[in-house]
Amino acid sequence: MLPNAKVARLCYKPSVPKLVDAERRRRELAEAVWRVIRRDGVAAASVRAVAREAGTSMGALRHWFATQDELLHFAMTLVVERARARGQAAAAAGGPPAARLLRVLEETLPLDEERRAETEVWLALTARALVDPALAELRDRSAAELHAFCTQVVRALVDEGVARADLDVDLEGERLHAVVDGLAVHAVTRPSALPPARTREVLAAHLAALGDTP
Amino acid sequence: MLPNAKVARLCYKPSVPKLVDAERRRRELAEAVWRVIRRDGVAAASVRAVAREAGTSMGALRHWFATQDELLHFAMTLVVERARARGQAAAAAGGPPAARLLRVLEETLPLDEERRAETEVWLALTARALVDPALAELRDRSAAELHAFCTQVVRALVDEGVARADLDVDLEGERLHAVVDGLAVHAVTRPSALPPARTREVLAAHLAALGDTP
Repeated sequence: MLPNAKVARLCYKPSVPKLVDAERRRRELAEAVWRVIRRDGVAAASVRAVAREAGTSMGALRHWFATQDELLHFAMTLVVERARARGQAAAAAGGPPAARLLRVLEETLPLDEERRAETEVWLALTARALVDPALAELRDRSAAELHAFCTQVVRALVDEGVARADLDVDLEGERLHAVVDGLAVHAVTRPSALPPARTREVLAAHLAALGDTP
Repeated sequence: MLPNAKVARLCYKPSVPKLVDAERRRRELAEAVWRVIRRDGVAAASVRAVAREAGTSMGALRHWFATQDELLHFAMTLVVERARARGQAAAAAGGPPAARLLRVLEETLPLDEERRAETEVWLALTARALVDPALAELRDRSAAELHAFCTQVVRALVDEGVARADLDVDLEGERLHAVVDGLAVHAVTRPSALPPARTREVLAAHLAALGDTP
């Protein structure tokens, strides 16, 4: 190896593992926060409890969050980011519009253990945001994002001729958003009544019904 | 007044005001519990905090609930009882089936300040039940009751010829339940996006769409 290449390697290399490590660490910490919230509730998710859960010191956690407010913000942000990333991947995978949009919406539903964890945390923090203005702003932004996406889904289905052309797109976006979040609440709180296959079936039936003629 | 009648009056009278007083006291205490939950969150709703809110002693509260578990159970029970009582009154008021069933379902939605308080408490306790098995049982029973009612609504609309005869009643009951609870969550968390008139409109559109031919 030439000395110059070696120097270049030394200068360049550390930044890549650092980014990878930071992302992995962020995910590990978020999962520690989620475990505490899911096991003991939002109120119990203090910086101290999360440090214990993650097997680290409170000092080391300060880089990520200094207060419980920041910790809950962090936990909610990760839920939204992960659902968004999966949704984008599902959208990019292509296929017929109705099937593709159904798959994107399914990424917000608790259809496996990962999404179940996210949905439980989302529900806990959605309720907590009723008494926590700092969290309410983040909850409102993520709700507005999903709501806008639901409206886009309806518009896309109309444009593709899958849904009826005379639908009230705004009202149907609101109704689809209610179905998606209602199913999310029921699938985490009533998992035996609403297992993943049934949850999918109800959502698929809703999209299909948008094509029914009056 | 004859002595016998006087004696009878004395024996009988006290029980009526007692019942009325007990019911009023129960309601006052529930509202004190709700105020604490809505203002400070479920975790802050201790027996001590509720006694302070209600302007009474912890000893006096023991008649109603001795622990926070019992207090939260009490708060959730009252939400369910009040929605059920209003729903029964709306059902008894008569009228065409579609309009009547819509009015009954509306009693579970946060369309005024009273129902908004109930829905906020329901949402807070539904989330709390994820980490509280004692509360989970009550949440499951009340969810099962609303779910069964949604299925009955669909069946009644089919029987009355308002909804399509070939509907999958169980699936549509599940979908209606999702719409109702999804709207409830959104109307308390996004009140400016989903004011009462819009909430009603989306629910009415859902019931109307059950009559659309495929």
